[in-house]
Amino acid sequence: MIYFDNSATTKPYKEVLDSFLTVSSEYFGNPSSLHGLGGQAEKLLSQAREQVAKLLAVKLSEIYFTSGGTEGNNLAIKGAALLNKNRGRHLITSSVEHPSVRAAMEQLEQEGFEITYLPVDATGRISAADVEKAIRKETILISMMHVNNEVGTVQPIEEVGKIVKNYPTILFHVDAIQSIGKVPFSLTENNIDFCSISGHKFHGLKGTGALYIREGARIAPLFSGGSQERKMRSGTENVAGAVALSKALRMTMEKSAAGTERMKKIQSMLRTGLNRIEGITINTPIENAAPHILNFSLNGLKSEVFIHALEQREIFVSTTSACSSKKKSPSKTLLEMGVPESAAESAVRISLSFDNTEAEAATVIEAIEKTVNQLRKVMN
Amino acid sequence: MIYFDNSATTKPYKEVLDSFLTVSSEYFGNPSSLHGLGGQAEKLLSQAREQVAKLLAVKLSEIYFTSGGTEGNNLAIKGAALLNKNRGRHLITSSVEHPSVRAAMEQLEQEGFEITYLPVDATGRISAADVEKAIRKETILISMMHVNNEVGTVQPIEEVGKIVKNYPTILFHVDAIQSIGKVPFSLTENNIDFCSISGHKFHGLKGTGALYIREGARIAPLFSGGSQERKMRSGTENVAGAVALSKALRMTMEKSAAGTERMKKIQSMLRTGLNRIEGITINTPIENAAPHILNFSLNGLKSEVFIHALEQREIFVSTTSACSSKKKSPSKTLLEMGVPESAAESAVRISLSFDNTEAEAATVIEAIEKTVNQLRKVMN
Repeated sequence: MIYFDNSATTKPYKEVLDSFLTVSSEYFGNPSSLHGLGGQAEKLLSQAREQVAKLLAVKLSEIYFTSGGTEGNNLAIKGAALLNKNRGRHLITSSVEHPSVRAAMEQLEQEGFEITYLPVDATGRISAADVEKAIRKETILISMMHVNNEVGTVQPIEEVGKIVKNYPTILFHVDAIQSIGKVPFSLTENNIDFCSISGHKFHGLKGTGALYIREGARIAPLFSGGSQERKMRSGTENVAGAVALSKALRMTMEKSAAGTERMKKIQSMLRTGLNRIEGITINTPIENAAPHILNFSLNGLKSEVFIHALEQREIFVSTTSACSSKKKSPSKTLLEMGVPESAAESAVRISLSFDNTEAEAATVIEAIEKTVNQLRKVMN
Repeated sequence: MIYFDNSATTKPYKEVLDSFLTVSSEYFGNPSSLHGLGGQAEKLLSQAREQVAKLLAVKLSEIYFTSGGTEGNNLAIKGAALLNKNRGRHLITSSVEHPSVRAAMEQLEQEGFEITYLPVDATGRISAADVEKAIRKETILISMMHVNNEVGTVQPIEEVGKIVKNYPTILFHVDAIQSIGKVPFSLTENNIDFCSISGHKFHGLKGTGALYIREGARIAPLFSGGSQERKMRSGTENVAGAVALSKALRMTMEKSAAGTERMKKIQSMLRTGLNRIEGITINTPIENAAPHILNFSLNGLKSEVFIHALEQREIFVSTTSACSSKKKSPSKTLLEMGVPESAAESAVRISLSFDNTEAEAATVIEAIEKTVNQLRKVMN
């Protein structure tokens, strides 16, 4: 089996599962309990928080554990909007965000907020100048993904961060769910107020995530209650999940430099190999692209048929983002990039992890060529 | 070690952890992925949902997986309020709810909703007649816990359900987090629209839970995004967590009849034993009480000092609910019941699981007596 769908989800590292199991069975106390079992659990939670903070080069008190990326994005966006609505009701985002950002924005629109959805160029990139032009005195939040989940385009968060610096009342949220560990960036140097990550995208567990909330930035909670996570996110803490997240992040960061280099090489191999196959158009840009995603269109073929055919060869890739794959509508990101609808409908996404190899890539190129030829024959 | 703090959290069953591990490592696909790994994960998710639905005697499509009890309570209350705010902005609840209900209500108050907090009698029980009296034409939701988490009082949800039946536009939310598996009740016969449960309260995992949403009832989501969980709760599904929840619920329901009988016996033993100790007042009522909670006051002693002293004997109990234990304020539930502040400050909660034994109870009674005498000596 060759698993090339790591942007949908990754296989948890064995060490991550081991940690989860140990904490769940041996340190099962409620961190809020006053007795020793509670104290042990609280200590583990605090160590996990410290490790995540250290790996992201921020303060312990700036890390909040969540149930995943969708919660992080919703909490940052709705939480900031709700708390700041008396200051202004205008938010800026891009037209190629993940559904968890897009739908949160649309829900806010129904509540009377105004949203500017910035266009992207042919590479899927927004322009920082457009961000600045969109700013109004009522603007309270700019929300932007770091790496696009469908094509891998890296957004200019550093440039936007510089702009945001001149508008101290505007909050800046970065969805780093696809970038963490794969495209280095600094939280503190880019004036980022909120940043969401998701455990299962880097070999952690589903149902785990973290939100960075810069010291001094505030949000209204989505979960009110027992005041856990400094009142930003109440509910009995998933201690084992937090420990598993910190372990997965540590392992990811340790593998990051070498792993990213290898992914770049594999991505380049795939690009060259696929470019040689007739009727394939690569949609992922060469510049400003993350190392792990390669999106291409199979002119004239339906992507769904293709991925099932490829699965016969035990190779797993995806049509578009997993979240959108069942909607059967062409990728919004590709359409926004100006890719024709027919090409968007035949789009395929390969997404790598640090553990994929060049040998796998060679097998995949060959299998894609055979599958394309086979399907074209059937169609003629 | 004798763990008598099961209302704070429970030790996960080994079988639950095994299931979680197997699903996480062997079926790690994203249920939204179109390929076979996604299909396997989706099938497991669907089986888990079916099992939970069957155990609660409701439809498959009425079960929504959450990250826990606090999410379930917030989602039901805020989700219903947000969606129905144009119909009315009045909600009814009790004055002894869990913080996740109380704080959700308080947040809604800040957003312009009006909340009626019903009083309780000396046993901690609300009156169904009071519920009916509080209903206005603007009332959109009644939210009530089934079993109080601090003293174990069972609320009259059946009577309230009958009242609700006469007001078809009023939604009824039941927080069954402390009652599920321990105090039988029917979701369908009591006109319940929403019901929250939490995995880690019945030997499942922290970070898992479910919300029952009656067919036809609707909420505005807290997490918008990829439309998972029928758009009520977007985000990549925690498949392993859902399977673990269904396993824990199945085991709990299988043990329920015999386990509840045993808990009643142990609770009665504890009540008799503690009643014999001078200066101890039992706060948990005899009628309408859940079988697993026994709350008592240690007149003249601070509960925190007591539970640490008891811990020296490897016995774990709690002061109040875990969520409130670090606030060092006396139990709101006890104060609402009319318990004097000094007695509320000396309150201790014992909470049982199906696995506790009469032998443990005998040891605990003896240990409590010794600890009380020892602390009283120190104080004199």
